[in-house]
Amino acid sequence: MIAEVKIFFEKIAVLGVGLIGGSLALSLKQRGLCGSIVGFGRKEGSLRRAQELKIIDGYSLDAAKACMDADLIVFAVPVGLFKELALKAAAGLKKGAIVTDVGSVKGMLVFEMESLMPQGVRYVGSHPISGSENSGIEEARADLFEGAQCILTPTESTDRNALSSVTGLWSSVGCKTEEMTPLRHDEIYASVSHFPHMVAYALVNSIDSVDPEFIRYAGQGFKDTTRIAMSSPEIWRDISVHNRENLLKLSRLFRERLELFDRLLASGDAPGIEEEFRKAKEARSRLK
Amino acid sequence: MIAEVKIFFEKIAVLGVGLIGGSLALSLKQRGLCGSIVGFGRKEGSLRRAQELKIIDGYSLDAAKACMDADLIVFAVPVGLFKELALKAAAGLKKGAIVTDVGSVKGMLVFEMESLMPQGVRYVGSHPISGSENSGIEEARADLFEGAQCILTPTESTDRNALSSVTGLWSSVGCKTEEMTPLRHDEIYASVSHFPHMVAYALVNSIDSVDPEFIRYAGQGFKDTTRIAMSSPEIWRDISVHNRENLLKLSRLFRERLELFDRLLASGDAPGIEEEFRKAKEARSRLK
Repeated sequence: MIAEVKIFFEKIAVLGVGLIGGSLALSLKQRGLCGSIVGFGRKEGSLRRAQELKIIDGYSLDAAKACMDADLIVFAVPVGLFKELALKAAAGLKKGAIVTDVGSVKGMLVFEMESLMPQGVRYVGSHPISGSENSGIEEARADLFEGAQCILTPTESTDRNALSSVTGLWSSVGCKTEEMTPLRHDEIYASVSHFPHMVAYALVNSIDSVDPEFIRYAGQGFKDTTRIAMSSPEIWRDISVHNRENLLKLSRLFRERLELFDRLLASGDAPGIEEEFRKAKEARSRLK
Repeated sequence: MIAEVKIFFEKIAVLGVGLIGGSLALSLKQRGLCGSIVGFGRKEGSLRRAQELKIIDGYSLDAAKACMDADLIVFAVPVGLFKELALKAAAGLKKGAIVTDVGSVKGMLVFEMESLMPQGVRYVGSHPISGSENSGIEEARADLFEGAQCILTPTESTDRNALSSVTGLWSSVGCKTEEMTPLRHDEIYASVSHFPHMVAYALVNSIDSVDPEFIRYAGQGFKDTTRIAMSSPEIWRDISVHNRENLLKLSRLFRERLELFDRLLASGDAPGIEEEFRKAKEARSRLK
């Protein structure tokens, strides 16, 4: 058993108040784990809406202002905006502040974020596995993280106290936390999340290119297989670009696997096909 | 509005009493649309179980015997067994009997089935879109077909009265029926069902080949995308082999689409990637 870490942040800045940022804010407020939460975002309309919904207490369209005096700053914008935002926010970060993020890619981005932190500001990378094909503040829910996994990606430079605080943050909202290196994180999530998104997007586009009328004949199987193709193109564009080495490797492996099917099909090798299917069924059935 | 066709079959033979065959039997019995139902199958254990569950009234391990005196015969075994079974059942088929099937592939198989029917026996191909990754008699449900689509694939030789009876059969158990040619059926279902199964199987095998430990990090997205990889290897082997021309065509198109992603990724073309994702999101969102 891990001793429970009691966390409380007097002031939190959430940069990007969408599904994940908004849900985290809501979840911390409902549990009384923070004093106040300030939002930053690009669209004033959705910040105003978040304030109406009492998800945040105030907001600023200036990242440095939003971060002023904050004890915890959470980056919850698409990962492609992290660097620019870190540069802009830097002026507002106080000494001792903890910065974390909810980005689905880590890898080199974690080292870049570390290098962009002003003296005395401590960065810890994190990734709660809790998205869906929905996005936006209207989808925010206080229980989004309950039972979800959250990966923390400390490096050799990570401050151990900041790591405990960020671990405590995610545990308090219901996550099971696990640590791994940023590079291992990206290898794993390329496999079980990022590449499957590419596959779903490519599958829909292929079928749609054959005949746009076909899709209406789809049953539950196709719906489930391609549900994630409704995910935000902007968020997944950034994830794909940042994790492209792993994605290109997986794409090659996957295309080889499909070519194997093609050869088995072309030669009418029914037992060979069944064997491939059986292997997949077995591996997938390990997952509940 | 289509005038409702009242159907009643004195004796029905269900060849293959699994998820689909068993659910059809259950559904017809509950609605009082038949006198008695005899099952045929390869495993006596599951036929006995089907009888215990009152899904069938009796069974035979001899196809011709099971079909004896039946007014309606439903082929519900994997499509790879159709021809052999049609040859075996032929001796038991009475003049005027209607034969249908629930196979997920039609195409040339429909013409072969027609050619295997004894004089006076009328075949009509059908395909209720109502499976799941589950299979077997224990999964049978009387409401499986409610709201499902059922495709009928008449040819120029199809007896019109038999076609109305089979249409009435599926409507009575809750299906929305639609007619199309056997070849068009296979083109459409290769796209929205058969090829997506190949993709799901291949995706699981690819990820599993990178590292069998990775799969435990999967979230809901991966689970949904690969759910159909738990489908019966035997059933899907037969479907794949029978629809291989369409599958090979789709596999080439799909791999080209993935290669396009790879080129966009390799060149860091973020707007190009976003555009592909956006196109897919739009097409997928047309499906509710």
